[in-house]
Amino acid sequence: MINKLCDKIIKTGAPIVVGLDPMLGYVPEQVKAAAFEQYGETLEGAAEAIWQFNKAIVDAVWELIPAVKPQIAMYEQFGIPGMIAFKKTVDYCKEKGLVVIGDVKRGDIGSTSAAYAVGHLGKVTVGSKSYYGFNEDFATVNPYLGSDGIKPFLEVCKEEKKGLFILVKTSNPSSGEFQDQLIDGKPLYELVGSKVAEWGEECMGDSYSYIGAVVGATYPEMGKVLRKVMPKSFILVPGYGAQGGKAADLVHYFNADGLGAIVNSSRGIIAAYKQEKYAKYGAENFAEASRQAVIDRREEIMGALGAK
Amino acid sequence: MINKLCDKIIKTGAPIVVGLDPMLGYVPEQVKAAAFEQYGETLEGAAEAIWQFNKAIVDAVWELIPAVKPQIAMYEQFGIPGMIAFKKTVDYCKEKGLVVIGDVKRGDIGSTSAAYAVGHLGKVTVGSKSYYGFNEDFATVNPYLGSDGIKPFLEVCKEEKKGLFILVKTSNPSSGEFQDQLIDGKPLYELVGSKVAEWGEECMGDSYSYIGAVVGATYPEMGKVLRKVMPKSFILVPGYGAQGGKAADLVHYFNADGLGAIVNSSRGIIAAYKQEKYAKYGAENFAEASRQAVIDRREEIMGALGAK
Repeated sequence: MINKLCDKIIKTGAPIVVGLDPMLGYVPEQVKAAAFEQYGETLEGAAEAIWQFNKAIVDAVWELIPAVKPQIAMYEQFGIPGMIAFKKTVDYCKEKGLVVIGDVKRGDIGSTSAAYAVGHLGKVTVGSKSYYGFNEDFATVNPYLGSDGIKPFLEVCKEEKKGLFILVKTSNPSSGEFQDQLIDGKPLYELVGSKVAEWGEECMGDSYSYIGAVVGATYPEMGKVLRKVMPKSFILVPGYGAQGGKAADLVHYFNADGLGAIVNSSRGIIAAYKQEKYAKYGAENFAEASRQAVIDRREEIMGALGAK
Repeated sequence: MINKLCDKIIKTGAPIVVGLDPMLGYVPEQVKAAAFEQYGETLEGAAEAIWQFNKAIVDAVWELIPAVKPQIAMYEQFGIPGMIAFKKTVDYCKEKGLVVIGDVKRGDIGSTSAAYAVGHLGKVTVGSKSYYGFNEDFATVNPYLGSDGIKPFLEVCKEEKKGLFILVKTSNPSSGEFQDQLIDGKPLYELVGSKVAEWGEECMGDSYSYIGAVVGATYPEMGKVLRKVMPKSFILVPGYGAQGGKAADLVHYFNADGLGAIVNSSRGIIAAYKQEKYAKYGAENFAEASRQAVIDRREEIMGALGAK
């Protein structure tokens, strides 16, 4: 799946992942109204609204991008109907040939991590049969529990040729509270990064490992160090744009081959129609605004990488 | 909710939480056969099997215990049908008056953490209405992202008078890989523990904070230190029994008032019928075996605490 991700980035010329994090506040009134008319102001109504919102955006942008990253929390908040909308979104994006990164930030130990791994990436056995649960291509994973938490995921990744992005240095202001603490003179995130590199050795694709890392765009100096610590790991870069990460800094996250990183943009793309820059589209044409935002973002990033 | 937990521990004399982690391998053949007859060897069949298994165990043990801890991964692995079984289990346990600790180990930042918090503990707004998603009483949370990840949960906990158990020192062998690393001479888990104490100050019940911690039974010396670092935080103690934690060591996790900790037991109780000790019950009477295992476990723990 890492090979597919690389291929699609080269083909689209866009190391961009669109974060499908559909807060209800982002969904245009007409989409909500239609959903509520059908299902009422219920969890089902909310789930229908975010699904229709996602679908319209995916239809508008799928040819331009390699991957999407649905944030499961935005679906899980609507209970079971929300989870159904998550699954529909994953399935639909896969039909469109997109690489789907499930931003699930799961992590536990032993048989519990194995259960998450089969649920999100692999197949679960039921009697003599086996089934995919949510069937994303990649999942984000939290490393706090150590190797016992990661290894069951690695097993499933090897079997399914799927991958992980392990949290190393997150984009938020307080990420340093624990992640930046010095251990023998080096920050914790570096120790985690070196473990990611080690775990990744077991799961190599053609040029990159299946096992990647999350490193926030808001910490470019740390990104530069981590790029070297994990040369074969793809870096998923959140925090660009809305959270303050700048285009010029993105260069640190990429390798000399122009690959090695994929930059997430969520609200900057899916709620583009709310920005002054895209106001001309209006709420009716929100998906067109998202399409234009993808094109602009690609230009901005490729410009910054000097590969325009 | 922390007050309810304390009251129920006192009333039942059992600082025990039953981990409802229904691996299919634990479910007796006759329960699986009945479920598969109705739904086939499908995700729905698996979900029905674990739900019927849970229900029988809850019916047999609810009067003896204060709380249950369903591990969501064991449900999530079965996709949407599994999530429905999770919700049915939560709802049923709440009907029985049990405190429900959702072992979800979620954790993200900002609006994403807020979405998890409303999805699992609070109410989500849909138009002019609001709804509970999964509606547990407590949730386990991963601290790796720092305060930005925890604060949205605290807000919901205050509003709903619900609580958290934040991962501090987990029970698994490799938990030390990151958690034990020394920062200014003190291990990371102590730093996390001191933050738990700080976060907990904002959310005090009568004697204990709503904000508790997870500290594995397999590390009693660390438990002793952490008990002092977080005097007002309840400690959820996994790893007792099957993972190797010993009864005599549990004393370190409790305060002088006899409270302050709740010991998890999962397979030791729910799959008791598989142990030689309870073989006389047979697979047909698996729930009775679980009931006896709760009674034995209570005696064992209270004996160790010298409060028998």
